[in-house]
Amino acid sequence: MKTIWIINGPNLNMLGRREPGVYGTQTLEEIEGMIAARAEALGLKARCFQFNGEGGIIDKLHEAADAAQGVIINPGAYTHYSYAIRDAIAAAGVPAIEVHLSNIHAREEFRRQSVTAPVCAGQICGFGALGYLLALEAFASS
Amino acid sequence: MKTIWIINGPNLNMLGRREPGVYGTQTLEEIEGMIAARAEALGLKARCFQFNGEGGIIDKLHEAADAAQGVIINPGAYTHYSYAIRDAIAAAGVPAIEVHLSNIHAREEFRRQSVTAPVCAGQICGFGALGYLLALEAFASS
Amino acid sequence: MKTIWIINGPNLNMLGRREPGVYGTQTLEEIEGMIAARAEALGLKARCFQFNGEGGIIDKLHEAADAAQGVIINPGAYTHYSYAIRDAIAAAGVPAIEVHLSNIHAREEFRRQSVTAPVCAGQICGFGALGYLLALEAFASS
Amino acid sequence: MKTIWIINGPNLNMLGRREPGVYGTQTLEEIEGMIAARAEALGLKARCFQFNGEGGIIDKLHEAADAAQGVIINPGAYTHYSYAIRDAIAAAGVPAIEVHLSNIHAREEFRRQSVTAPVCAGQICGFGALGYLLALEAFASS
Amino acid sequence: MKTIWIINGPNLNMLGRREPGVYGTQTLEEIEGMIAARAEALGLKARCFQFNGEGGIIDKLHEAADAAQGVIINPGAYTHYSYAIRDAIAAAGVPAIEVHLSNIHAREEFRRQSVTAPVCAGQICGFGALGYLLALEAFASS
Amino acid sequence: MKTIWIINGPNLNMLGRREPGVYGTQTLEEIEGMIAARAEALGLKARCFQFNGEGGIIDKLHEAADAAQGVIINPGAYTHYSYAIRDAIAAAGVPAIEVHLSNIHAREEFRRQSVTAPVCAGQICGFGALGYLLALEAFASS
Amino acid sequence: MKTIWIINGPNLNMLGRREPGVYGTQTLEEIEGMIAARAEALGLKARCFQFNGEGGIIDKLHEAADAAQGVIINPGAYTHYSYAIRDAIAAAGVPAIEVHLSNIHAREEFRRQSVTAPVCAGQICGFGALGYLLALEAFASS
Amino acid sequence: MKTIWIINGPNLNMLGRREPGVYGTQTLEEIEGMIAARAEALGLKARCFQFNGEGGIIDKLHEAADAAQGVIINPGAYTHYSYAIRDAIAAAGVPAIEVHLSNIHAREEFRRQSVTAPVCAGQICGFGALGYLLALEAFASS
Amino acid sequence: MKTIWIINGPNLNMLGRREPGVYGTQTLEEIEGMIAARAEALGLKARCFQFNGEGGIIDKLHEAADAAQGVIINPGAYTHYSYAIRDAIAAAGVPAIEVHLSNIHAREEFRRQSVTAPVCAGQICGFGALGYLLALEAFASS
Amino acid sequence: MKTIWIINGPNLNMLGRREPGVYGTQTLEEIEGMIAARAEALGLKARCFQFNGEGGIIDKLHEAADAAQGVIINPGAYTHYSYAIRDAIAAAGVPAIEVHLSNIHAREEFRRQSVTAPVCAGQICGFGALGYLLALEAFASS
Amino acid sequence: MKTIWIINGPNLNMLGRREPGVYGTQTLEEIEGMIAARAEALGLKARCFQFNGEGGIIDKLHEAADAAQGVIINPGAYTHYSYAIRDAIAAAGVPAIEVHLSNIHAREEFRRQSVTAPVCAGQICGFGALGYLLALEAFASS
Amino acid sequence: MKTIWIINGPNLNMLGRREPGVYGTQTLEEIEGMIAARAEALGLKARCFQFNGEGGIIDKLHEAADAAQGVIINPGAYTHYSYAIRDAIAAAGVPAIEVHLSNIHAREEFRRQSVTAPVCAGQICGFGALGYLLALEAFASS
Repeated sequence: MKTIWIINGPNLNMLGRREPGVYGTQTLEEIEGMIAARAEALGLKARCFQFNGEGGIIDKLHEAADAAQGVIINPGAYTHYSYAIRDAIAAAGVPAIEVHLSNIHAREEFRRQSVTAPVCAGQICGFGALGYLLALEAFASS
Repeated sequence: MKTIWIINGPNLNMLGRREPGVYGTQTLEEIEGMIAARAEALGLKARCFQFNGEGGIIDKLHEAADAAQGVIINPGAYTHYSYAIRDAIAAAGVPAIEVHLSNIHAREEFRRQSVTAPVCAGQICGFGALGYLLALEAFASS
Repeated sequence: MKTIWIINGPNLNMLGRREPGVYGTQTLEEIEGMIAARAEALGLKARCFQFNGEGGIIDKLHEAADAAQGVIINPGAYTHYSYAIRDAIAAAGVPAIEVHLSNIHAREEFRRQSVTAPVCAGQICGFGALGYLLALEAFASS
Repeated sequence: MKTIWIINGPNLNMLGRREPGVYGTQTLEEIEGMIAARAEALGLKARCFQFNGEGGIIDKLHEAADAAQGVIINPGAYTHYSYAIRDAIAAAGVPAIEVHLSNIHAREEFRRQSVTAPVCAGQICGFGALGYLLALEAFASS
Repeated sequence: MKTIWIINGPNLNMLGRREPGVYGTQTLEEIEGMIAARAEALGLKARCFQFNGEGGIIDKLHEAADAAQGVIINPGAYTHYSYAIRDAIAAAGVPAIEVHLSNIHAREEFRRQSVTAPVCAGQICGFGALGYLLALEAFASS
Repeated sequence: MKTIWIINGPNLNMLGRREPGVYGTQTLEEIEGMIAARAEALGLKARCFQFNGEGGIIDKLHEAADAAQGVIINPGAYTHYSYAIRDAIAAAGVPAIEVHLSNIHAREEFRRQSVTAPVCAGQICGFGALGYLLALEAFASS
Repeated sequence: MKTIWIINGPNLNMLGRREPGVYGTQTLEEIEGMIAARAEALGLKARCFQFNGEGGIIDKLHEAADAAQGVIINPGAYTHYSYAIRDAIAAAGVPAIEVHLSNIHAREEFRRQSVTAPVCAGQICGFGALGYLLALEAFASS
Repeated sequence: MKTIWIINGPNLNMLGRREPGVYGTQTLEEIEGMIAARAEALGLKARCFQFNGEGGIIDKLHEAADAAQGVIINPGAYTHYSYAIRDAIAAAGVPAIEVHLSNIHAREEFRRQSVTAPVCAGQICGFGALGYLLALEAFASS
Repeated sequence: MKTIWIINGPNLNMLGRREPGVYGTQTLEEIEGMIAARAEALGLKARCFQFNGEGGIIDKLHEAADAAQGVIINPGAYTHYSYAIRDAIAAAGVPAIEVHLSNIHAREEFRRQSVTAPVCAGQICGFGALGYLLALEAFASS
Repeated sequence: MKTIWIINGPNLNMLGRREPGVYGTQTLEEIEGMIAARAEALGLKARCFQFNGEGGIIDKLHEAADAAQGVIINPGAYTHYSYAIRDAIAAAGVPAIEVHLSNIHAREEFRRQSVTAPVCAGQICGFGALGYLLALEAFASS
Repeated sequence: MKTIWIINGPNLNMLGRREPGVYGTQTLEEIEGMIAARAEALGLKARCFQFNGEGGIIDKLHEAADAAQGVIINPGAYTHYSYAIRDAIAAAGVPAIEVHLSNIHAREEFRRQSVTAPVCAGQICGFGALGYLLALEAFASS
Repeated sequence: MKTIWIINGPNLNMLGRREPGVYGTQTLEEIEGMIAARAEALGLKARCFQFNGEGGIIDKLHEAADAAQGVIINPGAYTHYSYAIRDAIAAAGVPAIEVHLSNIHAREEFRRQSVTAPVCAGQICGFGALGYLLALEAFASS
């Protein structure tokens, strides 16, 4: 049974409360519940984490190197400048899928560049919480 | 029953033959078969098209305005400069999902910008043919 | 009697239906009717065309070289990148006036650059359908 | 009866004398005569002004807020950098049309950008003195 | 006997008529005649095509994959932005030589960049019709 | 008793009338009244000026060199390009504080750069009329 | 009674010791003392925090959402690149004022851009410790 | 006898007082005295003007069209952005020489670009007041 | 006896495991052993630290202000954007040497810029673990 | 009989030895032999030169002004920055053809710009030694 | 008696022959004669040199350190990129004046930047051979 | 016994005399003496060269291909633009280490880019003459 780690980055703990016009009204806990349910349905084992600091995300990615067969990562705003997280994804050597709740191409200019996507297997954005479920599906299908 | 149109752009008719190291060995016909099967499983009606010219894609998007409830579009290299297709997606007024077979962020610099994504609902890239299926799923779930 | 060809580019066939907030509620047919009426009033002969593909626009511009004494062109989104249409205007050797329905300077950044305007006699933008009529007037006055 | 103010910017008082290859041989007085005649024919009341300094143009735009129903402005070279005039047009709250004698897109690179056009209703360029008349027509038609 | 396809892009059908100061007075038919003659002299089989639309060029490049051992392509203005043609050249998998009649480095800035040249074997520009003959020679010598 | 000159630039005479959504409903006279009151409370002597032209602002800054111990300047749109005002501030040799009514960082891109701020002591923006009062306070405290 | 949180970012704990030529000789403790005194005088309740890591600042901003009616933030060097802190300020939904001790416009080029200011109410820079007191005043006045 | 007009721009009236480390200790009056003396020695008639506003400089350049055989212009900071003054120099049609007291290439980046120099005959910078005398000499020698 | 602190940044704890083609097969522990040995041989006292978060690195640099006479820092990917670490190096006031295992100039474009190097004494890159030993030598020689 | 000079720039003396994967295994002497043979066949007189320094190339181009009717130049890496060689080609006033062994468009970004090509008649790249022979042919045909 | 060295760079030996439309019809020898005459008249000792290679110019600048009290340098096209000559001027420690025959601001974009001017005392351009004489005068006057 | 060539570029012969504030007071001869001594101590054979011209450096690098096992190169200002030297280093096929006396990252912007470093094994900067000794050590250790 494949283990998939879901790592959420800065401010995602504020979901449901933060700018619902952009991010919707679901809380992170609700989304994690949906993830758990879908993972089980797909025969995957999912564990969810959330960090506001770069260091925490990097540490967890290093751990994932031994503990997970896949990583779903939403680096939040770090997506746009954290070369350190990029290096951590590459260092972990575990296939990673980048997920964004909103369509980053339809927002501010700076959100259109991802420095982490080049070391991921793929990217899914614009589908809200459903994006995580599609990423699980991608792991289940490969 | 929702009708989803899948519109593939330039060179995608060469799939399976063209640079398999980048795009895999499946032909477009095989992928369209997979799409049909998955659509049926999801209770969707799917129709697939492919065009090498911008004009053909734009015409079909206009038609979709009346005929489809969703569009999955892989504009191929037009992704990076066709503001005309962008306008056509916006004009059609039908929710669209942009799909790319390869992870466009891990290739040449010019492939990292999408001028069409800002008018789509979301974007999925890097999963090969599976990307189309995930997009169908997204339509089925919404 | 001067013959003026009016060549409309991609998505303009969707007028009246497409984003009325930006482009108004008149259809292309209605606008072509207004053009015909004003041309007649000004003693000009007008013929209208619309193409979604670059190739069609270029072919028609080549034809105009022998058939028209003036061209009014709204290249739609091709305005911003089609050096091929630019070359076709120059090749035709017929005076051309570029028209845009909306004020392209008040919209997205990419719409502010016209690669075709440098080979036209002038440019009119922001007046909706009236822009075509002003262009006819310009041909009538010169 | 609508009152339209025509405000010409720096160096336009030199018309007819200044680089006739670019700007033609008509003097500003001759052009203002043509404007008066056409305005009358269209049932508009036109008043013409010319200033070499930014301050004078801004003052006049403020006055226009109460005195005119439309402004035709040729900001000359200020077009390319005067954010102060841009703000004055916006502050006046009167519809404005930007006119240029020459086709600014066919000249030096720096002349292709207009910082004032985004707050105008539209822009007309490349038709010499006729441009002002077309702008009057636009006001008469709206 | 090697078969070489010569594919000419937009506006090249206007040769001899279009801006002779830049492109010379030979018509495309005359140039195709010269190509045929030189090909025969070199023991090559040449076939010539011309398209104004991107789609036509792409279709023909796909056909070339099976039908030709070499392609000489003058993408005209598409040279500077058509990533779709670039992908088609790569997809065809047939050695291609890019030819331009004029010295693209001595003209407008935008003509100095070729997005198609990186996937060609080489590029020849500035020699008028002779460029095609040199390209044939290159195929004959390799 | 310290004398502070408050110099307001282009379009600020339109306050209260101009785009109240951005600049509020207070008139310049009301703001100058608030400034006078606060200055008195702080034991400062304040004099207020407003100019639409660059030249007037520069002249007044030169005068300030002998007449004032501090300058509060809101250069309006000149903030973004007037190196001449920048030089005048430096030439005056009197400490200056730059004030903006709106948060210039939250508006159009061009408003985010100040060419005058580097020669000022500090900058205050986003607090409406209160910004002038805070600047007075800064002079009173130093 | 309004509660205002003052959040200082990286290296501000080194104040008084670090480059006094740029940042002055007061320690952070002394500045926090001044803040406390002024807050009391203004009828505000102030609490001060300092963090060197992005994560700590983000956590505290999230807490502020429920605990404070205003935030004064000096993000130190994070000002110039931390989109994560920007998102946290927006997510907190509490009015924020950005303060910098030095005039960031008069220093290295990279210090002139603030990625956090667009989501703040305003920005005050160049007044040393006084900047925090002016920010308090701004909260007291609104 | 050739008449040469010397037009000094913004802030040059502050010479001798303004930043002597950069601009020296001579006043504008002293420099104008030196200019008068040298002009006489060279058999030229010199008249000196100074303006802080763009409008004044432009007006004077227009006058020079009829009154002078040469113009020596130091546009001060307008050098770097006043396309209006550039147009006025071109419109005047009188040979102009641009002079700067300091070596503009050895100062801030923005001072290295001159938008007015392209329409002047030549440029002299870095020699203090002597620059004006060398410019007179250039007029005397040509 | 001089004390030198060696501070390694994000992902360096993964050495030996992470992309050995780029970073070699030595673990961080082995490298720290080599550093200890060489320091002793040179009469220096070395202490090694590693942090994945920016905050940890900044804290340690502050400590170094009192505890070390020199710092060898490999900021990992933070090198390319952490102005906060740059400020911390400057604040610490202890001579620092920047070391990179790989030749950062021969890798991705973004790795060629160091925002921290300008406040270091020097930089050594491309020599693997040997780089740290050379840096020790530099401290021993100065 | 036309005399053609072939001038090779820096590092071309290393051919056959230098990076054969990029430049092939032929030595410069072998290539010069091929050139001599082809020139003779075409009724041209060829002389070959090679220089590593800019000065030598410039001197030889000046000599060519009187001694040659055509120049074939491969400026090596100077192609990308030597405006001095560009000026020398223009000064010589002899038709020049630029040749590159490799396809400069398919290599590093900096190799895609040629500062010398704008003053040449044409450019040939990507054909190895054959490029020189094609250039000879071009001279023979013109 | 002051000794002034005049160092001319690449292609200046071609003067009188090279592009007379741009550079005039005087030969370098004639100009050097004019320089000698004027120097004598001014009580200066002048020696003239010309080099096509960067190395020769640098060597001569080093020599000038001991042998000359002033250097007049026309680095030709090296002006625009030779940081090595820039360093040599700075290293020589002798006041230098940069002279250009043509108005470099009125030519190609790349000629508008001088990398050597920042380390010179001043720059004179656009006066043909007269520029050298003005530079001598500047040395005589200082 | 390994032979290492040390190649110093333009202006380094002026060391000890040239801007001692930046480059120190040691002469090149003294530094070469230090190099010789350290080389001997490390069991290496060192030979030192210095050239002001690009050509000389390139010639010597070609020689090094056969004569040396390592090259230490300080290309001086050529570092920032000489793609010809870059190619020569690559062509030589001998491991090279780039050394700079000063910390190039702490000086003018243009000195921060090295076009030669990408083809070297590593780079050492900021340690004065010690940099060469560290480079020797690197060769001795590998």
